[in-house]
Amino acid sequence: MAHIDLGNELPGIRGLMAFSPLTEKPLNALAEVLLRGDNSLTRGERELIGTYVSYLNDCFFCQNVHGAIAGHYLGCNIEEIDAIKKDFINQNITAKMKALLTIAGSVQKGGKHVSHDQIELAKIEGASDLEIHDTVLIAASFCMFNRYVDGLATLAPEDRQFYINRAPQRAEEGYTASVYK
Amino acid sequence: MAHIDLGNELPGIRGLMAFSPLTEKPLNALAEVLLRGDNSLTRGERELIGTYVSYLNDCFFCQNVHGAIAGHYLGCNIEEIDAIKKDFINQNITAKMKALLTIAGSVQKGGKHVSHDQIELAKIEGASDLEIHDTVLIAASFCMFNRYVDGLATLAPEDRQFYINRAPQRAEEGYTASVYK
Repeated sequence: MAHIDLGNELPGIRGLMAFSPLTEKPLNALAEVLLRGDNSLTRGERELIGTYVSYLNDCFFCQNVHGAIAGHYLGCNIEEIDAIKKDFINQNITAKMKALLTIAGSVQKGGKHVSHDQIELAKIEGASDLEIHDTVLIAASFCMFNRYVDGLATLAPEDRQFYINRAPQRAEEGYTASVYK
Repeated sequence: MAHIDLGNELPGIRGLMAFSPLTEKPLNALAEVLLRGDNSLTRGERELIGTYVSYLNDCFFCQNVHGAIAGHYLGCNIEEIDAIKKDFINQNITAKMKALLTIAGSVQKGGKHVSHDQIELAKIEGASDLEIHDTVLIAASFCMFNRYVDGLATLAPEDRQFYINRAPQRAEEGYTASVYK
């Protein structure tokens, strides 16, 4: 049961957004531009960054929502997404993505954990300044979304298939239409 | 020097927002509604929550920007704001604010650190569900803003008077007009 009376039974951040429409708008607008806007990082890569940070923050709802969407975009099943979360260095992703996930992992610990060497490696592997910027902000934003969801003890369906089943619809509709569906 | 070439010399989050206008809009819209929108928590109280979380995250830029604005609203000098950051329990703030700052401190550690007992104490001290919601989201959002600012190693003026001098203007203009000023 959530820490406050949300007046609805919606899971995770959806219940919070229905409770607080004034903050829902900029939060969804941020997710939309970060995760779905025009970008040289694919939507799947950006969802993967969010999934990885949510995993590090131990947010069950967010890591399953975004893990399922990442899998949808990347053509991976849930076991492959889980393997990336747990040990991305040894999985079949690009060297650039490994460098960006390393930066995201440092952002999760705190901004000052991002090192010059991590940034230089990302640049060597082909990451642009904008891609590094977006990686840091995606990781930082999931440190917010994860805390929002768990800080108010929202409900999260335990069956992971729930998230997999919803992923294609979410991928199609995006985040600006996510509240009441 | 920032980790990426921002193409400007603006300090802190302002340099990032000038670099990335597409994400600046929802970020500033979020700050505006959370910190300045109609609310039963005063603007000073909300700025204080953001200041305290920025202090816990050791973000020099954010804790000085928002500490100065909090001081402006609350009629406190910088020493009084510093004392609240370091030991709010023993300072002259309301019992409700002490309960809300305790929740904010838990959010800073991670969403699951917020306890049922912390929430119940806040309610006993008069906090509404919406005030608890807003406290959690303000704290969570500063965990994002702080990581964004420090994760990209932005510049921050060392002279704390810089932030104090700017606070009245920022308080008057709000966050939707913050980028290029």
